[in-house]
Amino acid sequence: MPVNYRSFRTGVPWLLLCLQALLIVFFYFFFSGDDGSHIQSYPAFQDVNHMVVFGFGFFLLFLRRYGFSSTAFNLLMVALGVQCSALLEANLGLLLQRQKESHLQRIKKAAVSVTAVIISTGAVLGKANPVQLILMTIVEIIGFHVSRCLNMYFLQVSEEVSMMHVLLFGAYFGLAFSSRFSEPSPRSEKNRSTPKSDLLSMLGTLFLWVFWPSFSVVVGGQLRVTAIYNTYFALAVSAVTAFLLSALTTRDGKFRMTHIHSSVLAGGIAVGYSALSIDSPWIAMILGLLASVISVLGSHCLQRCLYPLLRFHDAAGVHFTFGLPAVLGAVAEVILLLIKNWTHLPSLGDLVLVHVGAVSLTISVALLLGFVTGFILNLRLFKTIPASKYFEDQCYWE
Amino acid sequence: MPVNYRSFRTGVPWLLLCLQALLIVFFYFFFSGDDGSHIQSYPAFQDVNHMVVFGFGFFLLFLRRYGFSSTAFNLLMVALGVQCSALLEANLGLLLQRQKESHLQRIKKAAVSVTAVIISTGAVLGKANPVQLILMTIVEIIGFHVSRCLNMYFLQVSEEVSMMHVLLFGAYFGLAFSSRFSEPSPRSEKNRSTPKSDLLSMLGTLFLWVFWPSFSVVVGGQLRVTAIYNTYFALAVSAVTAFLLSALTTRDGKFRMTHIHSSVLAGGIAVGYSALSIDSPWIAMILGLLASVISVLGSHCLQRCLYPLLRFHDAAGVHFTFGLPAVLGAVAEVILLLIKNWTHLPSLGDLVLVHVGAVSLTISVALLLGFVTGFILNLRLFKTIPASKYFEDQCYWE
Amino acid sequence: MPVNYRSFRTGVPWLLLCLQALLIVFFYFFFSGDDGSHIQSYPAFQDVNHMVVFGFGFFLLFLRRYGFSSTAFNLLMVALGVQCSALLEANLGLLLQRQKESHLQRIKKAAVSVTAVIISTGAVLGKANPVQLILMTIVEIIGFHVSRCLNMYFLQVSEEVSMMHVLLFGAYFGLAFSSRFSEPSPRSEKNRSTPKSDLLSMLGTLFLWVFWPSFSVVVGGQLRVTAIYNTYFALAVSAVTAFLLSALTTRDGKFRMTHIHSSVLAGGIAVGYSALSIDSPWIAMILGLLASVISVLGSHCLQRCLYPLLRFHDAAGVHFTFGLPAVLGAVAEVILLLIKNWTHLPSLGDLVLVHVGAVSLTISVALLLGFVTGFILNLRLFKTIPASKYFEDQCYWE
Repeated sequence: MPVNYRSFRTGVPWLLLCLQALLIVFFYFFFSGDDGSHIQSYPAFQDVNHMVVFGFGFFLLFLRRYGFSSTAFNLLMVALGVQCSALLEANLGLLLQRQKESHLQRIKKAAVSVTAVIISTGAVLGKANPVQLILMTIVEIIGFHVSRCLNMYFLQVSEEVSMMHVLLFGAYFGLAFSSRFSEPSPRSEKNRSTPKSDLLSMLGTLFLWVFWPSFSVVVGGQLRVTAIYNTYFALAVSAVTAFLLSALTTRDGKFRMTHIHSSVLAGGIAVGYSALSIDSPWIAMILGLLASVISVLGSHCLQRCLYPLLRFHDAAGVHFTFGLPAVLGAVAEVILLLIKNWTHLPSLGDLVLVHVGAVSLTISVALLLGFVTGFILNLRLFKTIPASKYFEDQCYWE
Repeated sequence: MPVNYRSFRTGVPWLLLCLQALLIVFFYFFFSGDDGSHIQSYPAFQDVNHMVVFGFGFFLLFLRRYGFSSTAFNLLMVALGVQCSALLEANLGLLLQRQKESHLQRIKKAAVSVTAVIISTGAVLGKANPVQLILMTIVEIIGFHVSRCLNMYFLQVSEEVSMMHVLLFGAYFGLAFSSRFSEPSPRSEKNRSTPKSDLLSMLGTLFLWVFWPSFSVVVGGQLRVTAIYNTYFALAVSAVTAFLLSALTTRDGKFRMTHIHSSVLAGGIAVGYSALSIDSPWIAMILGLLASVISVLGSHCLQRCLYPLLRFHDAAGVHFTFGLPAVLGAVAEVILLLIKNWTHLPSLGDLVLVHVGAVSLTISVALLLGFVTGFILNLRLFKTIPASKYFEDQCYWE
Repeated sequence: MPVNYRSFRTGVPWLLLCLQALLIVFFYFFFSGDDGSHIQSYPAFQDVNHMVVFGFGFFLLFLRRYGFSSTAFNLLMVALGVQCSALLEANLGLLLQRQKESHLQRIKKAAVSVTAVIISTGAVLGKANPVQLILMTIVEIIGFHVSRCLNMYFLQVSEEVSMMHVLLFGAYFGLAFSSRFSEPSPRSEKNRSTPKSDLLSMLGTLFLWVFWPSFSVVVGGQLRVTAIYNTYFALAVSAVTAFLLSALTTRDGKFRMTHIHSSVLAGGIAVGYSALSIDSPWIAMILGLLASVISVLGSHCLQRCLYPLLRFHDAAGVHFTFGLPAVLGAVAEVILLLIKNWTHLPSLGDLVLVHVGAVSLTISVALLLGFVTGFILNLRLFKTIPASKYFEDQCYWE
């Protein structure tokens, strides 16, 4: 065991060095064509950056003995993922003959793409070692861009819409990826949270809650001001519903912090898809309510019933925190489109097909790639951590 | 006792469900008339949002066993309060025949109004149960809008000025509200803070300190750039004075964290009223100094002398943190007006009368409503927590 | 010993009172000439403010028993320093016959200048008492403005470039200042960090990491949009390299939190100087890599070899966190200038001379002033803390 560790650990720096050197070389050759950045897009860029580094870093901070790794590995993955993603972004532009973008714009999109990686990390939080996380970052970023290209090329989905699938992709990739890791011992104390760690995680959640309207705006393009208030109202209703359902589902009417964590954001996620089709806030509010219901009930049912059956373990509950509300959002978008355009029946079929197709394609690619990546990265070669050493970062930090 | 608890707890979700359902229905019927939101007002909206959710959430985090409730109930009250307040805002506009506002504008104002609720919560922190907090939120939001309408209708106060009274209203409502709760046992250890909790609370205070200039700008309208630097300098002097007085008033010249907490913001609060009448930063600085003096001395005198006599307990010290500096600010505004306009004696009387009238009216409404609400919500019906169970959130959280 | 303490402590409030009174009087006489502030510069102002108060406040939070002082004294020094610096800024403008600036602009610059003070504080964290910190703040702010004036007057350096030296000045002033404090006992447990304090410090670091591009922009003037992405990519590479080198330099391939702390920002610091001369992100990335290498190796070599020899102790490692990357940045700037302008040989000599001169001048003034200040403030008069009482704030807080 210690031998394994050591051999693995000595590999990390060389892996990082190779990747970083490759990235710099690629940047030298393939990263150009700034059409003049505008300082106007800086606030949005910074908001997303803030969410990704700070918000998610603390959102994942609920494990009692995994605090250092949660925040620090998050930073590492963001730093790697953004470089990788910005590079792909710049070259996809050339391939798909899009118009040139500014570098700031690219970094902004890259930061959004990295959200997928961070969400996936949540599913294997405390179970994957740094080598696995680093390789997963690279593979998932490439996979997400491939999935976007497929969407844009075969289904003629617009770029903004293809970007919206980022949470869906992250959640299902993470789910599939985590299925290849062995289940932690049910008697283990280490994957419980402490009140302190829960509080810091709540800090991250509040951060994400406040910044989520920015995320909606950035993902969907700049002009959708309606997205801001729709997202805000959906988030507000989600927060109320999270408390409501938490008190309903626990045994004696107490609140449970994990419910609050996992479902206050649900409304924002669900509304992200359909912000274009929503005219009045009350629709967003109902969507927020439903998203929160799905998230809390999903957490309740999946964790109690389905996961133990499937011998499955989703550490941060990314499936019901991000996956299910995103699916709901995609379904709601189709329904709203149907309601809005039912007078134009001929074109409606195509429209629905494209939307359903894009969602299915994204989920399929995510699941497939997640399984394959999980399978390969759990080969003996990568010195996976034994289940008894899960959820503690003493073997990574001095 | 456990029976009481259980019966109370089973009530929370249904209360929330009814409120949320009502709000959605009201939004369907009464929330419309967006005149086209502008993305320009988004940063201000987000700053206030940030302050309210994150800043105040952590500002109230000083109780050792009440961390979950401090942050999470804060989120719940913000989510409820903003919906409720945005709805009132939209319909007051119709009643008072104001020009139409954008939804973003409304949410921004709603978030500012919610500050009153959060401040009031500070006064009963750890003493009120969730049902009381939820009902208080609704009552206080309505009360604050009524107070604003009275001000605007009878005293012809402008909308911006009526909004500035939000801190005053919150502090005095909270004070009156908390007077109906029984006093905690003086030997109780639970309402003390720990170094850890104090540190997190300091985090919230720093947040509020940094964002306070935004608050000044948002409350007072968009064009007052002078408000920013005046507020900033006042805050800076307040911070210095807080340390100065803290070392003077404690027994052997040490600093006391609660003094710092309660008075670093005093300058910003006091300057909020008179930012229009202040031409040079030095006036703001003197005001910041006086505000901090009043806050620290108030904390010293009230907590040592007056409150024990009145059998009164202000958990977060909202009276001297927000109330007294706001009163000072209102007085300073009148004095500055007198100095500035002493050549126009005839109109001066009216001007002073309006300002004094608005402050008195706001405080009266706040006190009256606070007493009544406190009285009603402390009826047996609401299963108030016994004083022995104050300041711990184990009965609310799993 | 207790007598010393008490006499010292009774002095703090009067010192603060005098300083604050003087500042208000000076503001009355010498602070005027706002040419009309623009709300546009508010976001930048707020970002810097946020970094200085919140980011650095938590960045310095790694000592286990010094949490209150780290954050609170930081606020005190910022509040004092910004006032002092804004005053100097306003009057230097008159002296150097610059065009008038808005007050907001001045506060923004003042906040940037205060960074130097906070960095210097890092070097004596836990060792200096409040009187020493307060006096150091005033002296260093004046010293930095003197150094800038010398740069601008004798070397004709532009104002923006003179501002960029702020980190360099802060680091070397701190280094020289700390050299006059006695070394802490090597067996002391108190200057170690705990996982909790490290985590909060990581929070501050993440904050700084996210906001650093804003810092680059603010320091260097508004038009340098390229500075944003260059800084961002440099920071990203720094973060990756920090992990890489941390795993390489520790004994058995584990990561060390202090390495991450001290070198994730290195790239941003180094790029700050040369952001004008960098055309392509890959140059910034290489610079980020080198900066991180210098920072980690510096931390390794200096702390293991050089400092014990020199009986030297740099509490927060400001030398390798801020000093060395800044020096690298200055060197890189010269090299980039050489590469870019080698066709204009005649003017090149002057250009290089000015840049090297400015850096040397700044470092010399910083070191000299630091030594002198350290010497004077360690006279018996100031009741320095004995080394046995280092790193705990019980004697300052109730």
